[in-house]
Amino acid sequence: MPEKLTPTPRILMGPGPSDVHPEVLKAMSSPLMGHLDPEFVQLMDTVKAMVQDTFLTKNPLTFVVSGPGSAGMETCLVNLLEPGDDCIICINGVFGGRMADIAGRCGAKVHKVNTEWGKVTEPSQLKKALDECPHPKLVALVHAETSTGALQPMEEISEMVHDAGALLMVDGVTSYCGVPLKVDEWNIDAVYSGSQKCLSAPPGLSPVSFSAKAVKALENRKSKVQSWFLDLSLVKNYWSGAKRAYHHTAPVSAIFALYESLRLVLDEGLEKRWARHHEVHQYLASQLEPMGFRFLVEEKYRLPNLNTMFLPGGYDEAKIRNALLNQYNIEVGGGLGDFAGKLWRIGIMGESCTHNHVNMLAGALKELMK
Amino acid sequence: MPEKLTPTPRILMGPGPSDVHPEVLKAMSSPLMGHLDPEFVQLMDTVKAMVQDTFLTKNPLTFVVSGPGSAGMETCLVNLLEPGDDCIICINGVFGGRMADIAGRCGAKVHKVNTEWGKVTEPSQLKKALDECPHPKLVALVHAETSTGALQPMEEISEMVHDAGALLMVDGVTSYCGVPLKVDEWNIDAVYSGSQKCLSAPPGLSPVSFSAKAVKALENRKSKVQSWFLDLSLVKNYWSGAKRAYHHTAPVSAIFALYESLRLVLDEGLEKRWARHHEVHQYLASQLEPMGFRFLVEEKYRLPNLNTMFLPGGYDEAKIRNALLNQYNIEVGGGLGDFAGKLWRIGIMGESCTHNHVNMLAGALKELMK
Repeated sequence: MPEKLTPTPRILMGPGPSDVHPEVLKAMSSPLMGHLDPEFVQLMDTVKAMVQDTFLTKNPLTFVVSGPGSAGMETCLVNLLEPGDDCIICINGVFGGRMADIAGRCGAKVHKVNTEWGKVTEPSQLKKALDECPHPKLVALVHAETSTGALQPMEEISEMVHDAGALLMVDGVTSYCGVPLKVDEWNIDAVYSGSQKCLSAPPGLSPVSFSAKAVKALENRKSKVQSWFLDLSLVKNYWSGAKRAYHHTAPVSAIFALYESLRLVLDEGLEKRWARHHEVHQYLASQLEPMGFRFLVEEKYRLPNLNTMFLPGGYDEAKIRNALLNQYNIEVGGGLGDFAGKLWRIGIMGESCTHNHVNMLAGALKELMK
Repeated sequence: MPEKLTPTPRILMGPGPSDVHPEVLKAMSSPLMGHLDPEFVQLMDTVKAMVQDTFLTKNPLTFVVSGPGSAGMETCLVNLLEPGDDCIICINGVFGGRMADIAGRCGAKVHKVNTEWGKVTEPSQLKKALDECPHPKLVALVHAETSTGALQPMEEISEMVHDAGALLMVDGVTSYCGVPLKVDEWNIDAVYSGSQKCLSAPPGLSPVSFSAKAVKALENRKSKVQSWFLDLSLVKNYWSGAKRAYHHTAPVSAIFALYESLRLVLDEGLEKRWARHHEVHQYLASQLEPMGFRFLVEEKYRLPNLNTMFLPGGYDEAKIRNALLNQYNIEVGGGLGDFAGKLWRIGIMGESCTHNHVNMLAGALKELMK
């Protein structure tokens, strides 16, 4: 018989999940209520309004997918793409690659814009892709690449996408609530995020928003969405509309946690939260660069909340990373793809974004690397 | 600014979620750990072993989908069906209908066996379907129809399906951990359930198991699985294998809760738990039948944990159901489809399966219906 659960308390400074505020854990441990309880339905309305406020959008089709960020990604793609549709996917890390994979499974003709990992997609690259495919249905890119720590400038790209008459789809998983992500101002047509990064809720939910133009594309589909679970023509009747139609059983406890974490974000204020992430990032740099750590990403494209850093020469990254976890209970992330074994991904997201976190990490590293 | 979350405590006697044990809520509110933390990976192994034990299977491909039961349903279908495959789907309620919808989205040729709601599929009906389509790739049916409260006998059907060389897929959402569901003994090739019924964990996860024959079908696919998120050729590398490959961020807190709820089930013992559901069901009948409630389902096919009952004549079901919720904080479920406004679905599942629950419900009804 397995023993009672006694998880070791960790300090989460990897690529997510991040530390969760005690009030969020408390909300999540409230006794449950039914997913069609009028009180829960009202709570869903408030969650929706808070997701709109944090995405800086007025989109009526704003809701939360009952699955992790990659289910949010798939939701956007399966609803907006049909077999034969042209799309352009910009790839500068793992998650752009994943979008291309899913778009292919939708039967779309995928035109890839490949960029070296750690860099961002340049408008000139997109221009070239649009010269070859002038009227794609959709252009997708990752705002904050969790695999590389690069932050994609959005405004010029957005203008080009709309000039081409295409829908702009954006992965906001690691940028949401940590750096500016202005859905309406940047004319983003479909955006998804995750709960476990700068929002500091437990993983498992994906806030999503669709513009009026994206809703129109959905309404004009010729074929059924290939996924029943992610079909927004069904899901939207559960998240809005006069009569809430049962679709699936919402993850009630996770929505409780999301409510409380969104409330804490709005209570702090988005601008203050962005400033906090920026300031703690600079503090982290001031502590680790003198120890010989160096950033992968050029300064102006650095994502403040996810820091990809090469270790100083001569150290075995896995050995030190394991010692951090086992001796100090501090988690940092290893590299993905070609960066595996070469760099770390140090997250300072949401509740994990404090000077105390940086001091714990820097202090532990000084002991381990002396 | 929305207020701090203060959900009204409810007594959950609908079709799920059911009440959750305080130890499960406590486990879920533990501080998080990373989804690739060696301690969490070990915990996943234990969860997998406990899912095997509760499904009564030794299937190595046993795991938990990071989404609700309907995502589990879709996982089974998208992995096992390819465009052009023949399948037979038995429909005697909402969830059989949903399976047919999803199978159609997979491009399969769907042969439906329709049965009146509240009844079960007779072997003779399946025989007729097999006469018309002798070599389907898959036959799917619902073990416990949550929309009607009918419990499907499995053994004769299973034999017929395997004689036809087909895979047997079963919806075990509402039967799992409440009534016998013997995956290996009944030769079930693909089964999925939900966390929020007789397991009494919060909604949002779906335990799933595939037989060796189902794994072979997966390996012999000619086309990619249409869903990336639910593609088992990818998911299985995260849930097992020497090197755990990152697929998506697991819902850590929900897995904590699942661990503890599975532990409580095994601590009680499956047979005792089945007996408890049966006994409390009889007690419920003894309390409500004298008040004029009558069962939809014939006695021998009644699902003990989900009781579909017509109200005595002359009462407005919605009015009484709302009064139960608003005055007594007791949730029971309304009818679905043709049964909307006509009957109730009274759940006595997991932690909600006690004499105290029945006494609270019967006592409140006596006051409301006098």
